[in-house]
Amino acid sequence: MPTMLFDAAEFVARRDAVKSAMSKAGFDLLILCDPANMDYLTGYKGWSFYVPQAVLVHLEEEKPLWIGRGQDAAAAHFTTDLPGTHILPYTDDYVQNRTKHPMEFVAAEIRRRGWDRSSIGLEADAHYFTMRAGDAIRAALPNARFADDQHLVNWVRLVKSDAEILLMREAAILVEGAMRAAVEAVVPGRRQCDAVAAIYQAQASGTPEFGGDYTAICPLLPTGEATSTPHITWSDAPFKNGEATIIELAGSRKGYHCPMARTVHLGPPPQRLADTAKVVVEGLHAALDAAVPGATGAEVELAWRRVIARHGIVKDSRIGYSIGIGYPPDWGEQTASLRPGETTVLKPNMCFHCIPGIWQEGWGIEISAPFVVGARGAERLAQFPEDLIVKT
Amino acid sequence: MPTMLFDAAEFVARRDAVKSAMSKAGFDLLILCDPANMDYLTGYKGWSFYVPQAVLVHLEEEKPLWIGRGQDAAAAHFTTDLPGTHILPYTDDYVQNRTKHPMEFVAAEIRRRGWDRSSIGLEADAHYFTMRAGDAIRAALPNARFADDQHLVNWVRLVKSDAEILLMREAAILVEGAMRAAVEAVVPGRRQCDAVAAIYQAQASGTPEFGGDYTAICPLLPTGEATSTPHITWSDAPFKNGEATIIELAGSRKGYHCPMARTVHLGPPPQRLADTAKVVVEGLHAALDAAVPGATGAEVELAWRRVIARHGIVKDSRIGYSIGIGYPPDWGEQTASLRPGETTVLKPNMCFHCIPGIWQEGWGIEISAPFVVGARGAERLAQFPEDLIVKT
Repeated sequence: MPTMLFDAAEFVARRDAVKSAMSKAGFDLLILCDPANMDYLTGYKGWSFYVPQAVLVHLEEEKPLWIGRGQDAAAAHFTTDLPGTHILPYTDDYVQNRTKHPMEFVAAEIRRRGWDRSSIGLEADAHYFTMRAGDAIRAALPNARFADDQHLVNWVRLVKSDAEILLMREAAILVEGAMRAAVEAVVPGRRQCDAVAAIYQAQASGTPEFGGDYTAICPLLPTGEATSTPHITWSDAPFKNGEATIIELAGSRKGYHCPMARTVHLGPPPQRLADTAKVVVEGLHAALDAAVPGATGAEVELAWRRVIARHGIVKDSRIGYSIGIGYPPDWGEQTASLRPGETTVLKPNMCFHCIPGIWQEGWGIEISAPFVVGARGAERLAQFPEDLIVKT
Repeated sequence: MPTMLFDAAEFVARRDAVKSAMSKAGFDLLILCDPANMDYLTGYKGWSFYVPQAVLVHLEEEKPLWIGRGQDAAAAHFTTDLPGTHILPYTDDYVQNRTKHPMEFVAAEIRRRGWDRSSIGLEADAHYFTMRAGDAIRAALPNARFADDQHLVNWVRLVKSDAEILLMREAAILVEGAMRAAVEAVVPGRRQCDAVAAIYQAQASGTPEFGGDYTAICPLLPTGEATSTPHITWSDAPFKNGEATIIELAGSRKGYHCPMARTVHLGPPPQRLADTAKVVVEGLHAALDAAVPGATGAEVELAWRRVIARHGIVKDSRIGYSIGIGYPPDWGEQTASLRPGETTVLKPNMCFHCIPGIWQEGWGIEISAPFVVGARGAERLAQFPEDLIVKT
């Protein structure tokens, strides 16, 4: 038996919660292709998600089934609590083949079990569940009723167990170290790629007690004019005096992600940047103050928006999203956001990354706070000064 | 105008090649969602592929259109040669919304241009082109004729320009440095995560002349029993004497990937591992000898298989795949493989990663060679001893 990251009771609770949500939604069977959901329900870990794979959850099966490429079956044996009969490898000729698709293998396994007239939930908008996969499974099981499961498992993941919160707190220690390394490394004349080397070093080496895992998003590092947009990565050009750099990165502990963003300015900052930083921090604090159990995601965003409106700032994108297990390309859970119209009600042990980024013509700023919802309100996961960082 | 990685003629040639393939396949319009294809045809770079985005190529438009999230439009201005009128941002309420999908925005832009009765190619099996995206675009354009484009742009990418080969050679220098750092760091008692920190350091810092980019796959590092499967990542456990570690990693130069794999054994290796290493290296050399212009992918694999068959080894998975631009989750191009049945004919300036991994019950070995097809045969991209690495 492999050493599992969580005890058996945790997996029983997760599977029960998913089955209960399936019953409510009218599903007999879920076909899960989101690696985070596969991990959550089985423990499966491995960078094999570039080929089709799935975890099947059936209401009447105690444990899920894992289906993947032959060479990855041993990874399923090593990392999950599934019995050998629940690990179903497909042959390598299914890989990148124009005339057959792994979802046809999945369909055959479903037929073999007599589940082909079931109500089946598909992760219609999950990364890696492609149009071709969706077409293949639907064509191969003409008697099944299919529906989008609307991120059913992601929504179950929204409220964490205490064991998961412990990992989130360890991830927070990792992100603190990585951000310290980043801020120290942003120096005029040093190459951006060398700063990123220092970030990666801190992310992986972590502390003497524990190391870090790969993060679902690489360090993001817009500098100068490119701070007007969030998802630019580094180059090997040197940092320049008089320029700002936005650093967005995460610590990952066994796949649990704590992200954070800060903005560093080399030399005295322009007044508008310094002024905007003050407003962003005031708005961030207002949002966190509003993030109490019972509040909606929309109410948290409104607290932010009231502050910035007073200062004449407009922001039309969301200010945060739920976090937990993350696999490339995203460390967000793709469920609750902090934005207008969000009706999700905050509960203890939900985790969010509040990141009210401001991107203007030619400049921008990000100062964020990852937090867990506690009994009385938001508790910051990471400790790091919430301010524009000026290095002179 | 942004500084482009390639000159204008290179982009003209790429766009012409794609349009020519479109004409042959009967497509008026392609909707491209693979970030590598978006990059190839526009220069667009940014870690924004966790939300839907697309590049549209129309036969009668000189330059493609970029469609993406509002906050990423500036990244399109910074990294592409597209005029502002070809950069079309959607509003943030499309993000992770149950009731609307960015592909409806794409459809509206297609209708606005009168292209909604066209023959449209979709990247049906591209990572990130989800079932929901495929359903949404097809529902929104009922008068269009849709077909899977069968990785049309990926196939155009298969033969590189000389400018691209230069980047592949720089990526090879990066992977040599990263592998040297890795081999040095695998030491009894050192934590795996600290070895990975050294790998990342080398991948990003590169050389005094140029740095490295993020790689599409993180360093893979199965150790001990887990060497029986390829896609296991590191932990914070220490390396142990008497155990093998498989290291698979890449160097990335501006997104161009040169991957490589080696196996390190701490202490005297078991005889079967040492013997298998000899066979693998002999087979690898035979495959590279067979990789001449005019040979098929199947013939290259056959050369390998003849060698291992003489030694009683069976391998049922492919031994290689084409490489070039890579975005998470894969540095392979998802086109030509080195495997039985592969009819693709090798041509100069194609690049492959020949990685004949052997995974057995409880042990395994990987020794690989990235190569470019030259006028007279395979030329190794990276220089690194091809053997089992024994550290005693």
